[in-house]
Amino acid sequence: MHRVFCSRWVVSGVSLTVGIGVGATLTCDRHNEPQDGGLLDRIPIIPIPSVNAASEISPYQPGQIAVNKSTAAMKYGFPSLSNIKTRESYVTSYDPRNRTAAWVIEQLNPETLTGTSDRKNCNFKEDETVHVYHRSTNSDYKGSGFDRGHLAAAANHKWNQKAMDDTFYLSNVSPQNPHLNQNAWNNLEKYCRSLTKHYQNVFVCTGPLYLPRHEPDGKMYVKYQVVGTNHVAVPTHFFKVLILEKQRGDVELRSYVMPNMPVDEKIPLERFLVPIESIERASGLLFVPNIMKRTSSLKAITAGP
Amino acid sequence: MHRVFCSRWVVSGVSLTVGIGVGATLTCDRHNEPQDGGLLDRIPIIPIPSVNAASEISPYQPGQIAVNKSTAAMKYGFPSLSNIKTRESYVTSYDPRNRTAAWVIEQLNPETLTGTSDRKNCNFKEDETVHVYHRSTNSDYKGSGFDRGHLAAAANHKWNQKAMDDTFYLSNVSPQNPHLNQNAWNNLEKYCRSLTKHYQNVFVCTGPLYLPRHEPDGKMYVKYQVVGTNHVAVPTHFFKVLILEKQRGDVELRSYVMPNMPVDEKIPLERFLVPIESIERASGLLFVPNIMKRTSSLKAITAGP
Repeated sequence: MHRVFCSRWVVSGVSLTVGIGVGATLTCDRHNEPQDGGLLDRIPIIPIPSVNAASEISPYQPGQIAVNKSTAAMKYGFPSLSNIKTRESYVTSYDPRNRTAAWVIEQLNPETLTGTSDRKNCNFKEDETVHVYHRSTNSDYKGSGFDRGHLAAAANHKWNQKAMDDTFYLSNVSPQNPHLNQNAWNNLEKYCRSLTKHYQNVFVCTGPLYLPRHEPDGKMYVKYQVVGTNHVAVPTHFFKVLILEKQRGDVELRSYVMPNMPVDEKIPLERFLVPIESIERASGLLFVPNIMKRTSSLKAITAGP
Repeated sequence: MHRVFCSRWVVSGVSLTVGIGVGATLTCDRHNEPQDGGLLDRIPIIPIPSVNAASEISPYQPGQIAVNKSTAAMKYGFPSLSNIKTRESYVTSYDPRNRTAAWVIEQLNPETLTGTSDRKNCNFKEDETVHVYHRSTNSDYKGSGFDRGHLAAAANHKWNQKAMDDTFYLSNVSPQNPHLNQNAWNNLEKYCRSLTKHYQNVFVCTGPLYLPRHEPDGKMYVKYQVVGTNHVAVPTHFFKVLILEKQRGDVELRSYVMPNMPVDEKIPLERFLVPIESIERASGLLFVPNIMKRTSSLKAITAGP
């Protein structure tokens, strides 16, 4: 029998009600949201200066075999243009105040998943491109009670040892609940890899969230722990946005949020699907306006079959 | 007689102990900080990709009369390169997750302080260059208990009505305790203006801080309120970094932190001076490496006379 622990996290106009042990559901809190169209109807596609550089930075050629996988990973644009770092296996935006990434994007396909690279050869390491004032170190994690949770997963990049090594930069890591990291989150990562069998290309964007919640005084607060002498932020939640390419240029979008706490593996992953809008509002990032530049057929999957 | 309320906010390696009613002092918590040199000795000047664009973006000519004041304001570099917006009177970096600026830089001199512009002609307005998901609105502030606190102050830009109008964008505003806004913080703004009598140029960078603090469970947390349906972040503190140009290219640096709560006006402003390092660590921004590109003589003032 599962203990039911309900915790109400809120993003603007949308409430995420996560019932640990009994599944995760999403409810839309419409009293703050006068519009009543579908998800995509409610997303105005206006020019966003901060995400306009995608085409210049990633001159993607349809059908190309990506020589530089991390550049190809940016086909659907940059969620933000802050502190961008391009690595062998991913592109990331660093958040120097929270000492972890704001987002990390990778491209998965059967090629990236295959190879002889071994994580036994890898060690977590400081990212020396980050100023010492804003860098996390292994000692920040030691004794913190949190795992060094990969954002771009190591197992996604077996194709090349350097590509796998690069996932061990601590700028690609957030403090993550060990149970979550080793169970439900790991299952979500495996699921992403499994999708390469069904889609031409799988783009994965992963990042931390710091969601506000109501407190007994009736006000809303963002509250998150920081660990180590460098005060590395412990996200309240993590997101994964999957941009899935089908034949004929059709694109499917699946976006997930999991709380940074133990999550029962028995809960189907579909229960963690959320509208992309909720991630865009809460993270300060944008996905849909960029994706719409690449396809005329976007289908957002926000519930299981 | 003042009530003494002590609240301990911490930045990496440095504790800010703010005693409301009895003054503000800064203590260095050295047990986490092996180095023991002076402030500038402890700041490694390493190449920071995120702040290298200052010279390209602001081609400052020594001795020039600034035609574009906001570009000239960037002489000492960009603290970050995220979501930069250039306005008539200031340059700012927007934080779309917190719905307010990360920093705002202005340049003050007798010329900018003089003119017939009147704030009676100004109204606070949404910043339409920010996506609706990440934008604050006047209704977010209504009934919140917080003032719409200017970061770049209106009274700094009497030289031109458009320059003053631009300070009323809500992207140049943070939720600020009304007592602070109308008293001690206002005094700090007046003090910045008074410095134009004694220095050739006064560069002012203002921004919010979200400082962690110890809680009874022995752990450290960042906690801040959010207001309105757009969840506008209420900073725990505000900083002002003053870059003061003297004759012969010498530069003085004064950096202040005030808590976002009532602050007794009787406390001398010098008591709110902090080492620039504490702001750089806590904000995720960098000032000193850029300033050192412009001067060989930097004097950081961290205590009153």
